Formats: sequence, C-alpha cells, structure tokens
Amino acid sequence: MSERLFIFDTTLRDGEQVPGCQLNTVEKIEVAKALETLGVDVIEAGFPVSSPGDFNSVVEISKAVTWPTVCALTRAVENDIKVAAEALQYAKHPRIHTGIGTSDIHIKYKFKSTREEIIERAVASVAYAKKFVEDVQFYAEDAGRTDNEYLARVVEAVIKAGATVINIPDTTGYCLPSEFGAKIKYLIENVKGIENVVIATHCHNDLGMATANTVAGVIAGARQAEVTINGIGERAGNTALEEVVMTFRSHPELNIDTNINSRRITPTSRLVSSLMNMPVQPNKAIVGRNAFAHSSGIHQDGVLKNKQSYEIIDPNDVGLDENSIVLTARSGRAALKHRLQVLGVELDSDALDTAYEAFLKLADRKKEINDDDVLMLAGQHRKKLHRIKLDFLQVTSGVGLQSVASVGLDISGEKFEACSTGNGPVDAAISAIKNIIRRKMLVKEFLIQAINKGSNDVGKVHMTVEHDGCSYHGFSANTDIIAASAEAFIDAINKFAK
Amino acid sequence: MSERLFIFDTTLRDGEQVPGCQLNTVEKIEVAKALETLGVDVIEAGFPVSSPGDFNSVVEISKAVTWPTVCALTRAVENDIKVAAEALQYAKHPRIHTGIGTSDIHIKYKFKSTREEIIERAVASVAYAKKFVEDVQFYAEDAGRTDNEYLARVVEAVIKAGATVINIPDTTGYCLPSEFGAKIKYLIENVKGIENVVIATHCHNDLGMATANTVAGVIAGARQAEVTINGIGERAGNTALEEVVMTFRSHPELNIDTNINSRRITPTSRLVSSLMNMPVQPNKAIVGRNAFAHSSGIHQDGVLKNKQSYEIIDPNDVGLDENSIVLTARSGRAALKHRLQVLGVELDSDALDTAYEAFLKLADRKKEINDDDVLMLAGQHRKKLHRIKLDFLQVTSGVGLQSVASVGLDISGEKFEACSTGNGPVDAAISAIKNIIRRKMLVKEFLIQAINKGSNDVGKVHMTVEHDGCSYHGFSANTDIIAASAEAFIDAINKFAK
Repeated sequence: MSERLFIFDTTLRDGEQVPGCQLNTVEKIEVAKALETLGVDVIEAGFPVSSPGDFNSVVEISKAVTWPTVCALTRAVENDIKVAAEALQYAKHPRIHTGIGTSDIHIKYKFKSTREEIIERAVASVAYAKKFVEDVQFYAEDAGRTDNEYLARVVEAVIKAGATVINIPDTTGYCLPSEFGAKIKYLIENVKGIENVVIATHCHNDLGMATANTVAGVIAGARQAEVTINGIGERAGNTALEEVVMTFRSHPELNIDTNINSRRITPTSRLVSSLMNMPVQPNKAIVGRNAFAHSSGIHQDGVLKNKQSYEIIDPNDVGLDENSIVLTARSGRAALKHRLQVLGVELDSDALDTAYEAFLKLADRKKEINDDDVLMLAGQHRKKLHRIKLDFLQVTSGVGLQSVASVGLDISGEKFEACSTGNGPVDAAISAIKNIIRRKMLVKEFLIQAINKGSNDVGKVHMTVEHDGCSYHGFSANTDIIAASAEAFIDAINKFAK
Repeated sequence: MSERLFIFDTTLRDGEQVPGCQLNTVEKIEVAKALETLGVDVIEAGFPVSSPGDFNSVVEISKAVTWPTVCALTRAVENDIKVAAEALQYAKHPRIHTGIGTSDIHIKYKFKSTREEIIERAVASVAYAKKFVEDVQFYAEDAGRTDNEYLARVVEAVIKAGATVINIPDTTGYCLPSEFGAKIKYLIENVKGIENVVIATHCHNDLGMATANTVAGVIAGARQAEVTINGIGERAGNTALEEVVMTFRSHPELNIDTNINSRRITPTSRLVSSLMNMPVQPNKAIVGRNAFAHSSGIHQDGVLKNKQSYEIIDPNDVGLDENSIVLTARSGRAALKHRLQVLGVELDSDALDTAYEAFLKLADRKKEINDDDVLMLAGQHRKKLHRIKLDFLQVTSGVGLQSVASVGLDISGEKFEACSTGNGPVDAAISAIKNIIRRKMLVKEFLIQAINKGSNDVGKVHMTVEHDGCSYHGFSANTDIIAASAEAFIDAINKFAK
C-alpha cells in the first residue's frame, strides 16, 4: 500500500501571475473544474486582497468545486487574512495560506526587521487565521536560503499556533536536490509537533531543478507537493504537476502515490496552455508535442522490437490518444458534446448551440476537426457577450504592394467604418480599428500559431494589448490569420472598453 | 581552485535528430563556431554513417573549428567506425564515440544477444576505433537501467581496450538523482583503471530530471557533462547546457567549474532556436523570455529593495543585455557588422552587403531594429542562391469574403503566374504556388511568430513541408506575414526542387 502524496495546484495563483497569462473568472472556473476532474487535492484559487477580480475568482471557484480544498493566499497581515476568509465563505473545504519571508536577506532588506520579530508576526498571523478556518497553511518564504536551525524555530512556533500544513518554498529556485531533501529531513528530526502536520514543498525551476527538488523533499518526508500545470509560473516557472505525478508512477519502488487520474493530464495541459496563452515547448517532459516521438532510426528500430527499449511511460497513461476521434461536417451535436466532455469541457445548452454552429462553419472549410479545434470552438461562445464586434473586414496586401484594410465595427449596435494602410496586412487592419477606437493601445505581444498542420489549418492568435498601464489578453482563431488577428485585438479591447 | 568539468555539446547530433530541426551544413558550421566561442570542450558533430549529409557536416565542422575536440558517433560496428574516422580526418582533436546497449532489455530485445557477447562487441569496437584515433569515448546505452555490477564489468573491459572517456547515458530519462549519483559512485569504487579515464553523464529529461541527474553525477565524480543548447533533443530533450553551467556558477561551494563564457549563453540560445525552428518556451530556465521577469507586486517590491531577494543569477552574466544597442535606418554597415559579431555571427563581405541592403529596407518599415531582426537578416543571404524565387504576390481576404491570391514565380530565370482561392490568405497563396509547382507537397507544420511586440513587427514563419517521404524546413521573415508564409513555403521547396 503506497503512502499518499497530496497535490496542491497553484496554476490559478502562482501560475496566473505570469505576464500575458491572466484569466477572467469564467476561464478560472473552467480550469478549476478541470483540476477537480484531474483529481488534485487542493486548488490555490488566488490572492484575494490583491484585486477585486482575484477576490471574486476565489468566491466563484469556491462555489464551483466540491471535492478539493480551496485555498487563498495572504501575507502575514491581518487585513489580507480577513479578506481571504471572506472570499472563502462558500468553500466546502476552505484553507488560508499565510506566511512571511524567513531568509536573512528577506528579513533584513524586505522587512527591515529581526529574526525574533518575524517569528512573532508569523505566529500572530497563523493565530488570527485560525479564528476564521480550521485549516491554516503557513509558508516560510525563501526557506530554500533560510538557515535550517532558525527555520526549525519558525516552524515549531507556527505549529504551536495551530498551523496544519507547513510549506517550505525554494522561492528563488536555488537549492540542489540533496540540499533540499536534507532541509526537509532536518525539520522532521528537529521540530517538536512536526508529526501532526503535513509538510509541503513549493519549488521553482530557475536552475532546472524544481521537479528533482520536489521529489527529494517528498522522499525525505514531505507529503504535499505544490505544482502547476505545464510548470507555468513566474520567471522559469514552478514544479510541473505532470512530472511529479509521473515520476512516482514510474517509480513504484518509492511507495508513494497521488490521487491524480493521469489520463486527464494531456487534456488539462492543453486547456491551460490554450486559455493562458502559454504554448508548451515541443520537448516539454510528459506534455510536449514531441515527448513521446521517437525520431532517430536507432530508436525507432528499438521501439518496434520492444516498446520498453526507449519508453518508460505509455503515452495512453497520460491521456495522449493518437487515435482520438476526428470530427467532420457529418458529426452531430452529440458527437461534439461527447468530445468536449472527453476534453474536460462542459457547456450548457446555449453555449453548445453556439459552439455547434461554429463547428459546422469550420467543418465546411477544414475537413477534419481535431481536439485543438474543438477546444477553440468551446471558447468562442464567450465572444457573444462582447460590446464591440467585428462587422466586416477587407484586406489587400502583397509583395511590391502597400497593404490596405477597410474595417467595420459594431459598438453596442451602432456601426462605424474606417480604413488604413500599414506595413503588412495585420498592421493595416489594426490601424484601421484604431481609427475607430481612439484610445492609447499598444500591442505588446503577438503570437500566431497553426498548431497542427496544413496551410488550410485554423490559425490561433494570442495578443497582449497594453492600455493605461495594464495588459489585456486577446485570443481568436480563424482559418484566415488576418481576420483572427483583428478579432484577437477586438477581444482584448473588449476587456477594458466597457 | 575549482575542478574542471568538461562540456560536451551534442546539439548538432542528439539535438538535431528532432523532427523539423534538421540543419544544412552551412547552418551547422554557424552553430559549431558559436559553440567554439561559447567555450565548449567537445562538439559532437554528427553520426557520419547515417547519411552523406551527416558525413559532410562532420568533415566541414572539423575544418571550421580549432580549439574544441570534434567527436563523431558510431554504433559498435566496424564500418560505422571506419566511416567516422574518415569524416574526422581534418579535425585537430578528433574523437570517436562508439558503444552499445547494456541494459537487459536492450541486450535481449534489440540485440537478441547475451551479456558476454555484448562485452566482446564493446571491446572489439573500442580496439578497432583505437586504430584510427587516440581519443575513444565509449557509451553504454541505457546505462540508467543497466544493473550496476554488470555495467562495471563492461566499463572495466573497455577501459582495458583503450577507451579514454566513459559515457553513462540515462537514455530513457528514468533515473532519480540519488540513483544516478549512486551509479557513478559505484563505478568509481568498483572499476579498475577508472581513475585514468573521464566519466561522462548523458541524461534525458523525460521525467524533468536531466539537469539534476547530471549535477548528481558530477558531484559523485563524473567530469564530462553531455548537453545541448536549450535542452533540445528527442522526446523531452537532453540536459540543457545553460542549466548545468549556471548551477555550478551559482553553487561555488561545489568547487566545480567549466570553461563556458556564460555571457555567450543567451546569444547562442537564440541562434540555435532560430536556426532549428525550436521556439524556447517563455518560462525555460536561464534562456526563456520570462526567466528573469519578476511580475508579481510582492516580488517587484522585493527586487527593488534588494536584487538578491528574488534573483540568484544576474541576467548580465548570461548575456541578457536589456540595454543592447538598437539599430535604426541611420546605422551604418560597421554598426551592423559589430552587432552581428556580438551576436556570434561572422559574415563575409558579400553576405554583409546583402544583409545591409535588407537591413535598410527593413529599417524603413520598422523604426527600431533589434537583435532578433539582426539575426534574421543575417540568414537572408542564403536565399540569394535559390533557384525558385517569388516574383510578385497579391492577396485579398477578409471577413465575409473569399480569399484570393495571384502569384508570380521566377524559376531559373523563366517567369510563371497562377492564381487560386483558399479558406484564408495563406491557403490561397500556397495553393497558387502549387498551381505552378505541381509536385506532391504537404505543409506539415506551420508556425508564425512576432517574437517582439507591436502589429508592425517582423513576422517570422517556420514551415515544414513533406515531399516524397522527407521533411524540409522553410523559413522567412517579413512585416507582411502572408508574404513571409509564401516565402517560407518557397524556401522549403528550394531544398528539394533542384
């Protein structure tokens, strides 16, 4: 019988902090439900005091999921904790996650404080959180660079104050696996009361060690791993859920397992990548496009003779189904609905109608509709709510020609038209839209992808537009990439032009 | 005084096996020279027996670089070794890399052989290679899953036969760091003569452990790390050079260092990514776009108070220069040449003329020319040699319109014209080209990127075209992404339509 490792997913908190990855509440609920289906134990839903949007997301995710614990982040500040408790009021299993920096560099420069004062603040915040919820998790920020003897004192004090989970983050991604494992072992051997709490790892990938550090921490005795889907997160990212889960599945001799339904890994990875504008690199472990592609002749020969020659994971075990059903113009509503369910998306009847209508149009232009297309169609229904809509668009461009675009917008029912030239068709179309919507808007990032194959494929456009100091993410997909670019720009504008 | 860790770069062999990453000889020489400037000790240049192209690349790289050892891969087969020796004839420091699978699964299923017979073949191949070169490296394929006692016997036998370097690959990316470190330690403690050779690690990233395994192996006593730029390679890829190098730089207490000039890491990463059609994911450690981006308010506050609060590596140390010179239409040839040199590209006078001409055209359309643009311009001169050239292109498309394209090609001086409709402007342009060049050609992969910002940025198009069972890679860049797509398609066609 294996010991249980709890999976704490922070895709919606630490992952979502990445520039260009911001999700709205509807999208966050979609991810939270996918995480519940995947089988994570804890969902960190946000940092409620940081913005009204984050507060609202924690409220809505609390209502939307049943089984997982919903966790909210705070600093060691009373108001943060009060606001977090309020945001968690509808959660079936609420957890407050509070904490403070414990490394000398954080104490001295960030807090201009002393070791003793930091312990007092840590204890006070845990005690205060305990007034609202039973389940209180404490993080010792930059624990990776905190001296073990002092860290043990902090941990012992917060356990006495009622903390139920102790999170040991390697905030800067600095530790080596041997070092990080030794740190967890030191705490287990030196902290009174440690046997009554769960120890958590929270590792970052700045030196490429996040997964190895997490695994070393778990082998040393930690029983909660803090992770994100695809390893997304600030800088070089967080520990990837899929790598930790599949490491323990591939190493049964370690006798540790999680509640994760590994066959949901690939669909969840794709959902997060598509909603967050974070393409997964082809050679990403477990979920990259090439992760199971044997290309060299020597390897192909070996795999044909015996799969295990070069394969330690069966691609089916992580939900990669090469023979997945391909939909065509003749597929019905039920087939589309079923495929969406398999991919982890539940649409209500109206949204399904919209998606099916778009599906039929797409199937006319593209013979085979694959999983990426289906996920894209499922997202389209959100557009119906837009105040600004694209009415018409015409673009002419070429080699030896000036690009020119004419565009029509429908803004709350009123019609507007404009035209513009540009140094390419996208530039012309966007300039024409700017001639109607006269705000300061800067296209910061612009990514076009035809994820599958063929020049007749759907092009997916992600765009980040800066307005008034904030970044807004726009997305669209269309077989015409110029149209998709204009639509993505309008999608982003709709997020601030209310 | 630190101990020296040798860096063995296999970007051009194991990295280049990835689908869509194939480089021609000119491009391989460019990478090899960049690796020499970076300071790698050994360049694995190819697998000469596998194709005439690979053979030729090893010959040309041997001539092009001076300081690093040039290494060629073989199986434990006499003809492989003879061909490799021939390919290495111009190398100043040649090394033959031969070996065979040693895990039971490889012995039984791949070789249908026995443990004793495998040792005989290993010894025979090393002895044969010694007839040609002094420096012979032996790999025990799938050593990660080979039982340590038998592995020690194999290693002892090949050392007796004259091997100078022993490579211990974790071919399937299966090992945990503790396990891999223990394997290296076992060999050091149990193999007679091991003190006279260098032990090498060659790790794969299937469970996200490649860097940690490499570091564990080096701590246990290995002194050569086999790596690739950006961690590219089959499946989930190889160990990333930048992660290993910066781990030892960040952990001086380990007393191990390399010859790498870390300030060349970012330029080399970009060169390889751009030539190989392998975008680096934003959260890739060390070289990702976000690797040093602090986005959350808490972190930004901490960094402003003291950089070290959240930063363990100074971005300047890996050559990330936020203040890099921006070129404009007023910059001269010398400024362009200097910037190219800083980026690791040396152009001869003719190629520089071509690049400067293209630079002036681009600077007219785009005010600031950044490093990505400069690298792109440096690649354009290859196009001048094309047999098939784009003469003109006109495309009209839009929302509510059928896309239509008219195209003119110049094929060895003769002019051809055609038109076509399509489900989008790219599809129309490519169909029109296909109406002139009537071969079976399938667009397999299609990626458009505007790596920087703004709708007026240069769009970079990578395309993989399948023809007659082989894949060909095309690239182009243009502020008009439809034109860039057509040009990339023509670039790919030029590689087989000779």
